[in-house]
Amino acid sequence: GGRKEVQFHETIQRWSLFHGYEYRARELNIAASYTDSSDDETSPRDKQQKNSKGSSDFCVKNIKQAEFGRREIEIAEQEMPALMALRKRAQGEKPLAGAKIVGCTHITAQTAVLMETLGALGAQCRWAACNIYSTLNEVAAALAESGFPVFAWKGESEDDFWWCIDRCVNVEGWQPNMILDDGGDLTHWIYKKYPNMFKKIKGIVEESVTGVHRLYQLSKAGKLCVPAMNVNDSVTKQKFDNLYCCRESILDGLKRTTDMMFGGKQVVVCGYGEVGKGCCAALKAMGSIVYVTEIDPICALQACMDGFRLVKLNEVIRQVDIVITCTGNKNVVTREHLDRMKNSCIVCNMGHSNTEIDVASLRTPELTWERVRSQVDHVIWPDGKRIVLLAEGRLLNLSCSTVPTFVLSITATTQALALIELYNAPEGRYKQDVYLLPKKMDEYVASLHLPTFDAHLTELTDEQAKYLGLNKNGPFKPNYYRCWF
Amino acid sequence: GGRKEVQFHETIQRWSLFHGYEYRARELNIAASYTDSSDDETSPRDKQQKNSKGSSDFCVKNIKQAEFGRREIEIAEQEMPALMALRKRAQGEKPLAGAKIVGCTHITAQTAVLMETLGALGAQCRWAACNIYSTLNEVAAALAESGFPVFAWKGESEDDFWWCIDRCVNVEGWQPNMILDDGGDLTHWIYKKYPNMFKKIKGIVEESVTGVHRLYQLSKAGKLCVPAMNVNDSVTKQKFDNLYCCRESILDGLKRTTDMMFGGKQVVVCGYGEVGKGCCAALKAMGSIVYVTEIDPICALQACMDGFRLVKLNEVIRQVDIVITCTGNKNVVTREHLDRMKNSCIVCNMGHSNTEIDVASLRTPELTWERVRSQVDHVIWPDGKRIVLLAEGRLLNLSCSTVPTFVLSITATTQALALIELYNAPEGRYKQDVYLLPKKMDEYVASLHLPTFDAHLTELTDEQAKYLGLNKNGPFKPNYYRCWF
Amino acid sequence: GGRKEVQFHETIQRWSLFHGYEYRARELNIAASYTDSSDDETSPRDKQQKNSKGSSDFCVKNIKQAEFGRREIEIAEQEMPALMALRKRAQGEKPLAGAKIVGCTHITAQTAVLMETLGALGAQCRWAACNIYSTLNEVAAALAESGFPVFAWKGESEDDFWWCIDRCVNVEGWQPNMILDDGGDLTHWIYKKYPNMFKKIKGIVEESVTGVHRLYQLSKAGKLCVPAMNVNDSVTKQKFDNLYCCRESILDGLKRTTDMMFGGKQVVVCGYGEVGKGCCAALKAMGSIVYVTEIDPICALQACMDGFRLVKLNEVIRQVDIVITCTGNKNVVTREHLDRMKNSCIVCNMGHSNTEIDVASLRTPELTWERVRSQVDHVIWPDGKRIVLLAEGRLLNLSCSTVPTFVLSITATTQALALIELYNAPEGRYKQDVYLLPKKMDEYVASLHLPTFDAHLTELTDEQAKYLGLNKNGPFKPNYYRCWF
Amino acid sequence: GGRKEVQFHETIQRWSLFHGYEYRARELNIAASYTDSSDDETSPRDKQQKNSKGSSDFCVKNIKQAEFGRREIEIAEQEMPALMALRKRAQGEKPLAGAKIVGCTHITAQTAVLMETLGALGAQCRWAACNIYSTLNEVAAALAESGFPVFAWKGESEDDFWWCIDRCVNVEGWQPNMILDDGGDLTHWIYKKYPNMFKKIKGIVEESVTGVHRLYQLSKAGKLCVPAMNVNDSVTKQKFDNLYCCRESILDGLKRTTDMMFGGKQVVVCGYGEVGKGCCAALKAMGSIVYVTEIDPICALQACMDGFRLVKLNEVIRQVDIVITCTGNKNVVTREHLDRMKNSCIVCNMGHSNTEIDVASLRTPELTWERVRSQVDHVIWPDGKRIVLLAEGRLLNLSCSTVPTFVLSITATTQALALIELYNAPEGRYKQDVYLLPKKMDEYVASLHLPTFDAHLTELTDEQAKYLGLNKNGPFKPNYYRCWF
Repeated sequence: GGRKEVQFHETIQRWSLFHGYEYRARELNIAASYTDSSDDETSPRDKQQKNSKGSSDFCVKNIKQAEFGRREIEIAEQEMPALMALRKRAQGEKPLAGAKIVGCTHITAQTAVLMETLGALGAQCRWAACNIYSTLNEVAAALAESGFPVFAWKGESEDDFWWCIDRCVNVEGWQPNMILDDGGDLTHWIYKKYPNMFKKIKGIVEESVTGVHRLYQLSKAGKLCVPAMNVNDSVTKQKFDNLYCCRESILDGLKRTTDMMFGGKQVVVCGYGEVGKGCCAALKAMGSIVYVTEIDPICALQACMDGFRLVKLNEVIRQVDIVITCTGNKNVVTREHLDRMKNSCIVCNMGHSNTEIDVASLRTPELTWERVRSQVDHVIWPDGKRIVLLAEGRLLNLSCSTVPTFVLSITATTQALALIELYNAPEGRYKQDVYLLPKKMDEYVASLHLPTFDAHLTELTDEQAKYLGLNKNGPFKPNYYRCWF
Repeated sequence: GGRKEVQFHETIQRWSLFHGYEYRARELNIAASYTDSSDDETSPRDKQQKNSKGSSDFCVKNIKQAEFGRREIEIAEQEMPALMALRKRAQGEKPLAGAKIVGCTHITAQTAVLMETLGALGAQCRWAACNIYSTLNEVAAALAESGFPVFAWKGESEDDFWWCIDRCVNVEGWQPNMILDDGGDLTHWIYKKYPNMFKKIKGIVEESVTGVHRLYQLSKAGKLCVPAMNVNDSVTKQKFDNLYCCRESILDGLKRTTDMMFGGKQVVVCGYGEVGKGCCAALKAMGSIVYVTEIDPICALQACMDGFRLVKLNEVIRQVDIVITCTGNKNVVTREHLDRMKNSCIVCNMGHSNTEIDVASLRTPELTWERVRSQVDHVIWPDGKRIVLLAEGRLLNLSCSTVPTFVLSITATTQALALIELYNAPEGRYKQDVYLLPKKMDEYVASLHLPTFDAHLTELTDEQAKYLGLNKNGPFKPNYYRCWF
Repeated sequence: GGRKEVQFHETIQRWSLFHGYEYRARELNIAASYTDSSDDETSPRDKQQKNSKGSSDFCVKNIKQAEFGRREIEIAEQEMPALMALRKRAQGEKPLAGAKIVGCTHITAQTAVLMETLGALGAQCRWAACNIYSTLNEVAAALAESGFPVFAWKGESEDDFWWCIDRCVNVEGWQPNMILDDGGDLTHWIYKKYPNMFKKIKGIVEESVTGVHRLYQLSKAGKLCVPAMNVNDSVTKQKFDNLYCCRESILDGLKRTTDMMFGGKQVVVCGYGEVGKGCCAALKAMGSIVYVTEIDPICALQACMDGFRLVKLNEVIRQVDIVITCTGNKNVVTREHLDRMKNSCIVCNMGHSNTEIDVASLRTPELTWERVRSQVDHVIWPDGKRIVLLAEGRLLNLSCSTVPTFVLSITATTQALALIELYNAPEGRYKQDVYLLPKKMDEYVASLHLPTFDAHLTELTDEQAKYLGLNKNGPFKPNYYRCWF
Repeated sequence: GGRKEVQFHETIQRWSLFHGYEYRARELNIAASYTDSSDDETSPRDKQQKNSKGSSDFCVKNIKQAEFGRREIEIAEQEMPALMALRKRAQGEKPLAGAKIVGCTHITAQTAVLMETLGALGAQCRWAACNIYSTLNEVAAALAESGFPVFAWKGESEDDFWWCIDRCVNVEGWQPNMILDDGGDLTHWIYKKYPNMFKKIKGIVEESVTGVHRLYQLSKAGKLCVPAMNVNDSVTKQKFDNLYCCRESILDGLKRTTDMMFGGKQVVVCGYGEVGKGCCAALKAMGSIVYVTEIDPICALQACMDGFRLVKLNEVIRQVDIVITCTGNKNVVTREHLDRMKNSCIVCNMGHSNTEIDVASLRTPELTWERVRSQVDHVIWPDGKRIVLLAEGRLLNLSCSTVPTFVLSITATTQALALIELYNAPEGRYKQDVYLLPKKMDEYVASLHLPTFDAHLTELTDEQAKYLGLNKNGPFKPNYYRCWF
């Protein structure tokens, strides 16, 4: 009940992107035959469906949509070279032979590539969706057609949600020995309903901030009974999710929503962490004049050296054309700031939560809200001044732009390697604790993505490795290697 | 007949953007009441409509859509400060008092702001559309409601097209003394049907490459009987249409069509004029590795100094992820090049025509075309290799991104000033020839746009002006001032 | 007398760089044997010197320094590939066969490469220095040793100066038919002393702003009796002398004089022409925050679009760390501005004259001047505030940094081609007027420098050339092609 | 003996910069009266000198040079605002009251500002030089004149070196309670000669890599008997010493040595850590085409995303104009690579040691070395090919450019704060171990440098601090906060 709502709130907001994605996918395929079923109001739980091999161990919207989903998967495969490389390697060796993985993630083409890779590596998989809206029905159908027991569709009810999870776990004659989770709901369900299953489970791989947080709490409370791998905080994933991805998505998000011109615009970016650095670099390159606010003097000094005026928000709020928050903090932009902005000022959030802009303060009677486009509201003051609020203060890059497959590829590869590591780790390497991916694995994920750029890594000579005190195959940096700015 | 088709072909292609624009406008206002009329198949020519003041001297799709159009116009006004400044100035002085302007341009919110500005400056206007598809019906309705005789709707037939133009010109008791044209069709019609009108016409202002070309031909043939102003080639307009606009729209166009990541991608840009420079600068800033091809050694040397490897297309065609043409030339990308590209290579055109990529060569039986999104085709080779062709080789920035209002504002202001200049020029200043906007006017257009950036111009002291041999108010550069690269 | 002083003033200031260059050359070769002669106070005019082949038709400081000069010339040859390419071509064809060139330029290693190239092309040359300080004695010696009649040394008196020029021109049995001048003094001397010589002279090639100005005045006055080629204003030369060269030399000049850090510094650049653009781009890239002042709204709008705040100098003068002038105007920085600058503010000039900063206004009793380094003065206010004035307001890039050989190579190649063009032009192509280098020649200069960058030019196909209406070998842009910003 | 030689080798190489600095300082003050003493060959140890207050507790080259040294100190004060701020704060509070600091560092104007700050904070100081060549005699004189017992001069013998250190420590009636060391020699001396002193010593602050390495070895061996603070590895210092400083000094070092033009040059940078990132960013901004080599796939992926082709050195060695090493590794550039480079290729090292280029391999009979400038050698192959080797493979930025005072200010402030922290730490906070500066101190150093940029830090509200779980005054990041790339 209550807890669940919060959970939905967080994950929906975080992955609202995928709605957009699906919307686009559908929009572009209007003529496809499967759209016949889009008006089909029968619940998948009430349908009898079989795939072409006769199996009915799945529950999706419409198994007939499999062909379109397969095409989407094939396109995604082309941009996920690391997983494809793992598959190729798996022709000789099956590092997940015997693994029985139960998964609960967003069900998209990229996830499908991951699942089919896990299969190629020897694993059996059963899968549910971690979000009631984010499933791409066609992809789910394609997976079911290929023999994956998938239980997910777009628009599940909360009851459906837990029913699907249960169908993955509660199987006669099959018991999972690995968990891949995104948000912690699957883990939570097993803890609650089938605690004995943990006796056979070798480990949990968790992807989300929320899920990782829960695992740490379990660990603190002494209740974590298997090793868990936090794949959210790997260096490679962080760099791509933040710096590199935001450098592009800030431009994309602003263009798609406002069609504005960047040249000559005055922008204030609140926060100069990785996300802020990405936003600032992109806008500066496009000819905007960028101001930065910071609370940490070290990040502040970096902003200075990178050529940005470090100001307090109040100093520039009257003059800027765009306000972007990237702090992870709350109420960074207050009603008082909003009152002082000039007409047509654009306000948006690239940070880690929807609290950065005090949007609630704008829900007062004297202000008029006008929805001018999807994700774009004009908030109008009594004197006619308009503020352009994007995505109602939620994450701009997830709401109004897309995440490139390449970034998702890094995440998926990290997940696959974490599963392999946990499954194959010798007894005792991992205790009942939360671990980061070993540095060497992180480097391996990176190396699998270098061929995309036709990039050629240099190898140490024996002599050099000895001089540096390193193994020729890495890790090349210590395990506590982290990147905070 | 034949000629007209070519004309349509050119202008439709050039302005295909506006379809996209309108599409968006509509898409975002699904709930608006006027959509009732969208299924209305009655020709506007067959309707009896009156505006709220009782006038029926117009022909638009549906006068009831005026309110929505008015809102679009108001939003555009906010981003066209230069025209608004002209209006303010017009409170004291009416430089177009007595002017009777007949116009033929795309009918959009930005055009409406221009027309209402001309009105405020004292002119009477009658208007038709220069393109059968590009009219925003709601804007046309708003103009008609405000008393402008507008004859235009989206989806005119060719017969409608000329009928509308004729209704602008052929009026009892009213004869135009100024022409504002975009493409030359209006001018052509008057030449053909009402040559005597030119006795009273003080001049023509022409915006398009095609129209300007025609005027120069008339002039060469000794048939140009009034002065004409070529506003296409003003420095300010050129810089914004090419360098600044393309710097942003190349990223926007690629993102909206492919959701690709720019970082690390290898790109070849064919041509290093203003458009190529804009594309290269943007992609380099986003972390792409950019190669350039050029035929002109001076532009080539610039590419080198700006940090781009200058290559022949053949040298890199096998390795690049993206090919962008910006040459104005034909068959820059041939079938042979296309055959050698690697799988998933993206091919698009930012140049001045749709001839740069030899798209026709891809219409052969062994290749399969697959439309994967609007404006995105996969062309598939027998071995499975896919080329991603954008906008079928037409202009990417017009087809797949939008032109910011700010750029259109520069064009519209230039048009307004050209009309004022021609209308007020003392006898003899302009002969029966094609003129560029005087340098000083160009500077004035620029100066009217500086307040957008809160930019403060420095004024020469008397002493400095004397030292430089300049008038304090400009022009600051000679009239032959031009910007070729 | 009077006129001459002005002339010296201008050229000394313009080429003060070369003092620095020579100084460095000497400094680095302390042990070389020729330094014995550095204390030699005998005037070269009073010495009897012969080269190894027995010729004494030259007058240099010390013929024994030839070997060191030869090494400097060889090093320069490596960075002047275009002239070396012309030499190679000259093995088959001698386009300057019969040419008798009298030259008056700075005598440096780069000039030597030019002279020896002219020789290889078939010309006979006699040479004097255009500046009493700028001659590199060792290079002059090397040229004399190789058989070039050179009359020049560092530290000539004014009488020596004209004596040297006269020795070049006033020769028995030899009469020049081409003039290569830098500053116009040689041309002036012939006009004054040997006007009849012009009957045989086919043309003048002039390199300097001052000399070109004089030629235009002669032309206006109807006194120019041969064609003259203005090689100062070629597109390629302008781009390299201004944009590309200043982009690097602003950083170099500031570092060498002040050892300052650029990151985070606030800088105001006065003027956004090519020079200002180069300065702004470099400083922005190094992390400075750059403000721009402009008088021309078109350049101002460019500054905005390139991401610079456009301000009046007064608005930022109290806060900036560096003030750079690039206007070509006078008194851009006044005493009033200087009074308001903050402590330690650096003031320097990159523009076209030493008038931009009102340095004279700082010569008042209450201010103390302190020379802290070569080219660096602290001007100290009564309250202790210090302004750091570089090069006493003269050109920073010429005074405090060096001009790369590559830039000089472009100039020298342009001169060589201008000589070839004028010498070989069919009767009537050039009248008694001042000409710019034909566009095609400009393109040829550029193309000769492309191999330095291993840059590969694309050639038009016949079909493409026809489509564009161009000759396959250029020119690719019209003759009025110019680059003003 | 043996050990000492190694030590000299390392520190001389590391600080060779300061020779250059002094050289410049002298060079620019040729007329100063103190130059009379420059020929004075009497050892300072044999002189009887007194300062104006009658003290003779010092040993410097010439106490009469004090005035010039004072001016240098005053200039440095203007660029070390953080230390000046500490002094101001010390008017109310003396956090080092009772501290008796013995120091052994380079004696430069910046060190003098540090020492006088320590004095203002309440400390007594005695000082020796950590390098036999790096002392600025005039600064040492100024310090002695102001009452600081300084024992140091330029050109000490090894015996002098230890004698000076001993004079600092071995004083009747005075015993140090704090050590500030740079290289570990002072610490070593006390360990060896006066181990009992450690009973009163509260801690050691060590600045150098070498010295820190020794302390960790002592600690491992259980022989470290007081707490030690490693100030080399603070985040702020690292960022400035590496990324920001190298971004500027790579350009400066290349220009000062070669006068080359950066535009269009092909460069390979070996290593993409902080130093490599700085070099790449700067050269890319100046229009060079940059290739990167890396061994670590994570750094490699960053290079890709930042727009650099990742290659093996062999792939590009024949085509590049410049090779720059930034790896910390050995033999990154081998003789084989050098053999394959093209004529005029420039080779230099920005990394952490002089081992990166195998310079020794070039000392073979068939190659000719030619010293063409200070720090510039041409190495000439039998076929005439020349390689331009800078600084004989030692650190380019230390050898051929200068370290801005701003960077030294960060180091000096960090040292001062480390002394305050150790001196005031409550019993038990620090054990007999090596510590990093607490994160909060690091932030404080940064904050003291923000006013230089007129940068305004934002403060957390109580509510925000609570939300983030942070103290309003920092630290804002955890103590293990580190920056590895």
